[in-house]
Amino acid sequence: MARFRRTVLGLLVFGVATSSGYARTQSDEILAVRDYRVEHEREIVGELIEFLSLPNVADDVPAMRRNAEMLVGMLERRGVSAMILETGGPPHVFGEARVPGARRTILFYCHFDGQPIDPSRWKGHEPFTPVFRAVPLEAGGTIVELPAEGRLDSDLRVYARSASDDKSPIIALLAALDALEAAGLRPNVNLKFLFEGDEEMGSPNLERVVREHRDLLKADLVVAADGPSDPSGLPTLFFGARGISTLEVTVFGPLRPLHSGHYGNWAPNPAIALAHLLASMKDPETGRVLVEGFYEDVVPLSDLERRALTEAPNDDEQQMEAFAIAEPEAEGSRLELLNLPSLNVRGLRSGWVGGEARTIIPDVAIASIDLRLVKDVRPSDQVGRVVAHIEGQGYRVVAEEPTPDLRRRYAKIARVVTRDGYPAFRTSMDLPISQALIESIEHHTGRPTVRFPTTGGSVPLYLFTDVLEVPTIIVPIVNHDNNQHSPNENIRLGHLWLGIETLTAVMLTR
Amino acid sequence: MARFRRTVLGLLVFGVATSSGYARTQSDEILAVRDYRVEHEREIVGELIEFLSLPNVADDVPAMRRNAEMLVGMLERRGVSAMILETGGPPHVFGEARVPGARRTILFYCHFDGQPIDPSRWKGHEPFTPVFRAVPLEAGGTIVELPAEGRLDSDLRVYARSASDDKSPIIALLAALDALEAAGLRPNVNLKFLFEGDEEMGSPNLERVVREHRDLLKADLVVAADGPSDPSGLPTLFFGARGISTLEVTVFGPLRPLHSGHYGNWAPNPAIALAHLLASMKDPETGRVLVEGFYEDVVPLSDLERRALTEAPNDDEQQMEAFAIAEPEAEGSRLELLNLPSLNVRGLRSGWVGGEARTIIPDVAIASIDLRLVKDVRPSDQVGRVVAHIEGQGYRVVAEEPTPDLRRRYAKIARVVTRDGYPAFRTSMDLPISQALIESIEHHTGRPTVRFPTTGGSVPLYLFTDVLEVPTIIVPIVNHDNNQHSPNENIRLGHLWLGIETLTAVMLTR
Repeated sequence: MARFRRTVLGLLVFGVATSSGYARTQSDEILAVRDYRVEHEREIVGELIEFLSLPNVADDVPAMRRNAEMLVGMLERRGVSAMILETGGPPHVFGEARVPGARRTILFYCHFDGQPIDPSRWKGHEPFTPVFRAVPLEAGGTIVELPAEGRLDSDLRVYARSASDDKSPIIALLAALDALEAAGLRPNVNLKFLFEGDEEMGSPNLERVVREHRDLLKADLVVAADGPSDPSGLPTLFFGARGISTLEVTVFGPLRPLHSGHYGNWAPNPAIALAHLLASMKDPETGRVLVEGFYEDVVPLSDLERRALTEAPNDDEQQMEAFAIAEPEAEGSRLELLNLPSLNVRGLRSGWVGGEARTIIPDVAIASIDLRLVKDVRPSDQVGRVVAHIEGQGYRVVAEEPTPDLRRRYAKIARVVTRDGYPAFRTSMDLPISQALIESIEHHTGRPTVRFPTTGGSVPLYLFTDVLEVPTIIVPIVNHDNNQHSPNENIRLGHLWLGIETLTAVMLTR
Repeated sequence: MARFRRTVLGLLVFGVATSSGYARTQSDEILAVRDYRVEHEREIVGELIEFLSLPNVADDVPAMRRNAEMLVGMLERRGVSAMILETGGPPHVFGEARVPGARRTILFYCHFDGQPIDPSRWKGHEPFTPVFRAVPLEAGGTIVELPAEGRLDSDLRVYARSASDDKSPIIALLAALDALEAAGLRPNVNLKFLFEGDEEMGSPNLERVVREHRDLLKADLVVAADGPSDPSGLPTLFFGARGISTLEVTVFGPLRPLHSGHYGNWAPNPAIALAHLLASMKDPETGRVLVEGFYEDVVPLSDLERRALTEAPNDDEQQMEAFAIAEPEAEGSRLELLNLPSLNVRGLRSGWVGGEARTIIPDVAIASIDLRLVKDVRPSDQVGRVVAHIEGQGYRVVAEEPTPDLRRRYAKIARVVTRDGYPAFRTSMDLPISQALIESIEHHTGRPTVRFPTTGGSVPLYLFTDVLEVPTIIVPIVNHDNNQHSPNENIRLGHLWLGIETLTAVMLTR
């Protein structure tokens, strides 16, 4: 991806993103881990291939059980005591390894189910028959054999469902254990592992697992290894994720579409009404959401978090170029704005357009809205504020399809279907455990970290911070161009190798 | 239709809509025509059935030629000299009958093509195999045989494509000629007939026919017998029709849909932008269009026209009940508002809603708009005003899909695809020929007329008023509940009978 190159060069040549004066060399421990990895590349890839060959779409519970059983075996071979946690659906897997003298416990979270597949859209192979490409598919890369001998090129990629999301991080964790063991080293923390079996279904069982196994899962820190790392290639830490709620708003015109000639200018037009309603929600100049109280509960970033943001690679210009954006919606960098709640109109529907357009006054107009939430902005509160705003615009808000009688009584009716979703989580960067983790990764890997107070997307890790009450940090390791959630998902081996080192550094946190 | 009953009773009992003191009895001429019709009901219906049995979708040119040839025969049997006008597509038919001593010439316009058909949606028969029902299909009416003998019930309906739109008016005109002839009477005007063969395709050849045959078509009045008459059952005259123009407006966000988590609040959202743009076009309180100059060229109604509107049955309350409308969009009755130009958002599209909703920032948002035009508001002027309004909102307006480079340069781009359509027409009610026509119909039929300065819908009859420079009035005769343009189109015989009398009265205009 050419658009990131400038940033990466900028970082490496000028050191823009270093957070302090760490030596640019790896620790002895990491060099030992690297030596092990170099000697055992094919074994590591072999275990990944075997794991990826097990189908893992979560609605196939027997398949997920086979994955879980393989995982238990993989953990136990490393001396990690492991067990299956039953959920009624796809099982989850728990593992634990105590380290004599360790002060702290880190719980590693990954998931081993993958997104549903459409085999017809995978190029040249089945999603659960992993293949290699020396060059990305998008750049014309064809399927190649693993070379018979010698080192593996870091640009080699493995293509299979879950190659990046999220089986490779599990393989990286296990390789880190092997490497430490082979080097005669030990983690500095007790280790726990929770591998979820149905994350891609929206984690329907995670809350129950967390509540039922609260003691088992007790830890000082959760490290979630999921998602892509920063395009700069530097070790990346997300200290939070935004929560999400959704609303679908329907406003009403005549009971059925009416001839725009015979009724135009008389029958109320719901598309125009919806336009007025949506326009009232956002300032077109500043991009600020005009819903009362929308930003009320937002907790400001600390100085440390603000500095981390400033130091993180800012690729706004490249993104504007790539997506042909002349001017962002609001003031501020993208990374700053992700720390605010958002109101996004994700869909509009009314009548017909284009070749299907008919000269009618539509009967309804629909807007689908998603709200992204940040720390301490509660889903039901935020949804309630938007509903109150709609009422404030003179609408009678109903949850069900309004009857004709109701429509005869009220000129402005909005049917609002809400889904509270789930809240954001954010772990303070100022916590000692946060600082210890950053320090360990930067010290051992010899590279500055990229640290974000939050990712813009949503994952329900509030279950760890709010239910389990354990600080949680996301440490993603896979390449950003992995085709996550799409056909032709892949992992770049170079990212897997660096991921092993980064996760080893996590295990070495003091 | 229960909702009209009150109005009809009101009119008949209290005479609300009488425009002056006409006797409530038919003229001798009309009574003679009625006697003829009563004696020849089965012949008239037989000719209609034969005509309706000819398929007449305009894209089947050979079929349209068979229709045209049948029409020529039907005219010539009545002593009308007739000819086919070639268009290169479906032929048109012209007929002429001079009446000794007549001062004026009336050109009757109808069309003999019908809307496209979907046979699967016709109940119990093929669209070109006419059948009878004693009760409307919607009220559960089944197909019945014509009774072996005796009078035909006025509520009997013929179901077939073009039964109402627009073959029955042609049959009514021919029956009127037969009836006058049988009674030893003559029209008071010279007669001309123009039957169009591709009206339902948008009249692609009418302008050329009118221009090429300007002399042939010369007349003092065009009477267009098309469309449904007023639900009150009274003779109906439309002195105009609105014109129509359309615009499709596309506004732009990122080059492709972006993740609303990672880009929400930063990437510009085109759905919100479109909402602001559309909201700027119409006052939500008054329903007034806020586009500068939108009402500038509107010619006010004359006192006579205003009075006609006041006297016309106002069914706003019934319409509000039927379509569950609590409050019309603007002040004033529906009939009044049809005399103003309108701006109607007929469709909206952006992203996805409902079960298909995805958490994305859409790449585009589209609004399809139709403008209805009234007399003297020129299509290109009105379209230009809306485009200027969009520019006034800060948009760079382009006709083609903007390039990524253009999108990088301008924050606000609107792609506007316009179709000028065609202008309105309106014939003044104050003209002597208009007054003579009203007087003749009211005198002969013994019933008050319902007179509208315009219909809300659009038909390109400006070709007669503007190109041919002949005043044009629409005199529709068919039942309003005829399923026009839909499957199961039908004509109610009672309307056909009254239509014969109304069109006879037109021919008797002095």
